[in-house]
Amino acid sequence: MSGLIDNSIAAMAKLREIRPRVHCITNTVAQHFSANVLLACGAIPSMSVSEEEIEDFVASASSLLINLGTMDPLRTRVVHKAVAAAKECAIPFVLDPVFVNASPVRLGLAKQILAARPKIIRANQAEAAALFDCTERGDNEFQAMMCSHTDCAVITGATDKVFTANKLIQIQNGAPVMTRLTAMGCALTALMAALLAVENDAGIAATAALLWFNIAGEVAAEKSSGPGTFVPQFIDTLAALDANTISERAKL
Amino acid sequence: MSGLIDNSIAAMAKLREIRPRVHCITNTVAQHFSANVLLACGAIPSMSVSEEEIEDFVASASSLLINLGTMDPLRTRVVHKAVAAAKECAIPFVLDPVFVNASPVRLGLAKQILAARPKIIRANQAEAAALFDCTERGDNEFQAMMCSHTDCAVITGATDKVFTANKLIQIQNGAPVMTRLTAMGCALTALMAALLAVENDAGIAATAALLWFNIAGEVAAEKSSGPGTFVPQFIDTLAALDANTISERAKL
Amino acid sequence: MSGLIDNSIAAMAKLREIRPRVHCITNTVAQHFSANVLLACGAIPSMSVSEEEIEDFVASASSLLINLGTMDPLRTRVVHKAVAAAKECAIPFVLDPVFVNASPVRLGLAKQILAARPKIIRANQAEAAALFDCTERGDNEFQAMMCSHTDCAVITGATDKVFTANKLIQIQNGAPVMTRLTAMGCALTALMAALLAVENDAGIAATAALLWFNIAGEVAAEKSSGPGTFVPQFIDTLAALDANTISERAKL
Repeated sequence: MSGLIDNSIAAMAKLREIRPRVHCITNTVAQHFSANVLLACGAIPSMSVSEEEIEDFVASASSLLINLGTMDPLRTRVVHKAVAAAKECAIPFVLDPVFVNASPVRLGLAKQILAARPKIIRANQAEAAALFDCTERGDNEFQAMMCSHTDCAVITGATDKVFTANKLIQIQNGAPVMTRLTAMGCALTALMAALLAVENDAGIAATAALLWFNIAGEVAAEKSSGPGTFVPQFIDTLAALDANTISERAKL
Repeated sequence: MSGLIDNSIAAMAKLREIRPRVHCITNTVAQHFSANVLLACGAIPSMSVSEEEIEDFVASASSLLINLGTMDPLRTRVVHKAVAAAKECAIPFVLDPVFVNASPVRLGLAKQILAARPKIIRANQAEAAALFDCTERGDNEFQAMMCSHTDCAVITGATDKVFTANKLIQIQNGAPVMTRLTAMGCALTALMAALLAVENDAGIAATAALLWFNIAGEVAAEKSSGPGTFVPQFIDTLAALDANTISERAKL
Repeated sequence: MSGLIDNSIAAMAKLREIRPRVHCITNTVAQHFSANVLLACGAIPSMSVSEEEIEDFVASASSLLINLGTMDPLRTRVVHKAVAAAKECAIPFVLDPVFVNASPVRLGLAKQILAARPKIIRANQAEAAALFDCTERGDNEFQAMMCSHTDCAVITGATDKVFTANKLIQIQNGAPVMTRLTAMGCALTALMAALLAVENDAGIAATAALLWFNIAGEVAAEKSSGPGTFVPQFIDTLAALDANTISERAKL
């Protein structure tokens, strides 16, 4: 797995050097935190959700995040326009199907977006089960199925699983305090979108994001005393994290 | 009042154990902070404001928060649907009538919601005066009037007053720095909604939220040097606050 | 320039004493942080974006911020109503034409707002170039042109430039870490709106905001180790910043 770690480190360095603009359609709960995570990692966020200008913003961005939290009818139309613009301009996009397990309407929207083939899908176990009707399936069967919808499906949990057409990568970094903060998953998916702007291989982009995010979380947890003091330490650590720390701590 | 303190401590313990999901319709200024306050206290927030899916989210939640900040016509429709779903499913809800004193339209909306009888209403003096036409009334007269609209009315200020049908509880915890931060009242009301998910007595749920929130504020103020450093300390303290600290500091 | 520094310090003192309410129509990414910046500096934020109540909120406020981030058709209508109410009630307003360089639709909206003559416009170089068609112009020509649209145009960057009808003030305070956080420019413009509520001279209000904001940023950068720990220190410093620190550090 050391090749994958080296590739991840290279993708991180490239993001910091190139500083791409990532357009994020994300829920209003996660916007501010996600923007600061992207800036700390070197990317430039834009977050317009205007129906009239979404195509201009997407066409001039390097990648796109579609996060389905806090949807409403206006935002749904914006999502469709954004995905169409991304396809037309060959801009890679990532899907975060937040809470599709809690709402049939949102699940329907997520399935429509699948048709445009996101490069990466990031979900938790319950969301992935709803999206791929896969509650009862094993990893192999899941892998075969998700290939028809995306290059890379990431299922996050105590162990994070990165599925690609020919690999299953398992990562065990992170800290328990991260489950006690809102928008952590949303910000992680935003970072995956940022890495797709500089790294064409979706498996590497997703792995790089998971290592960067979760190892920064481990370091920050050691320097803080709860979910409140964790946040400033986490953003500082994302901004400063170096290749050595990644190599030493990565648990692939 | 030691019975009430014990009951409050029991409600806090129950929230941390059961971890109920609380659906929050709250203003976009307060969403992120309120979500982190709920997570620190053990609850799970959801925050959809989609007209199409609000009923699914409310029906599967354990309690509901209706906060009237940053309303718009879409959100107003969502509020009505959410309240109707809560009534139908017997899910308790809390009303935070933000700034009803500054807008006749919003005041009208708040009065419509009163008809569905929120279990708790939390307001400041000016908002309560507008909502109950009670500028000139004393505590007894106010108590008689609010009983026809809610189980419990909380009026927050330097001294917080919790009115129920047969009691008036006064609480004097908190720290001055808390008035220098946005969304503190909104997050407090969200915590009241969370406690209603585990404690049926509205007076106990409201008192428990006030003690937890304001005593955490006192502890955090002692560890910080202004409104900026207060926030991380406050979230850490909410997550770690124990029964002894509540007992020792409660000023009922 | 010491007269200007003294006037800036006097405006800051007045804001802390009078505590005016500032109505902010600002993007959802910046709302929470901007509200906390205003509260730390002594102002009271309100943030309604309801079409039905915007006129009530603006008419009872002391000044108005129009920030064009995260626009949508509803919000666009609200902006027009807010500007009309501000003109009718002679309430000063500030324009922050976020990302007008990235969207022709938004640029069109910004130009319509110019017709109502904002007291201050705050933009970065790219936004100002789009708004005033001035890519190729020198400072003198820009100054002549902006006078027909506003009392004061502020172009922020490594050096901040404050243009008024008869002056060009250049300010070199600030810290590099401030470019690594979202909503810093938005919050700065909100502070300009707050200062306009207590200081009629737009050039002084803009300069006071720049000194307060950027010198607090310098102090906070010295006390922190990255963009994460910077934020709490920054808010603390805004709340506590005194006249001596302004005088000693101002680089006009």
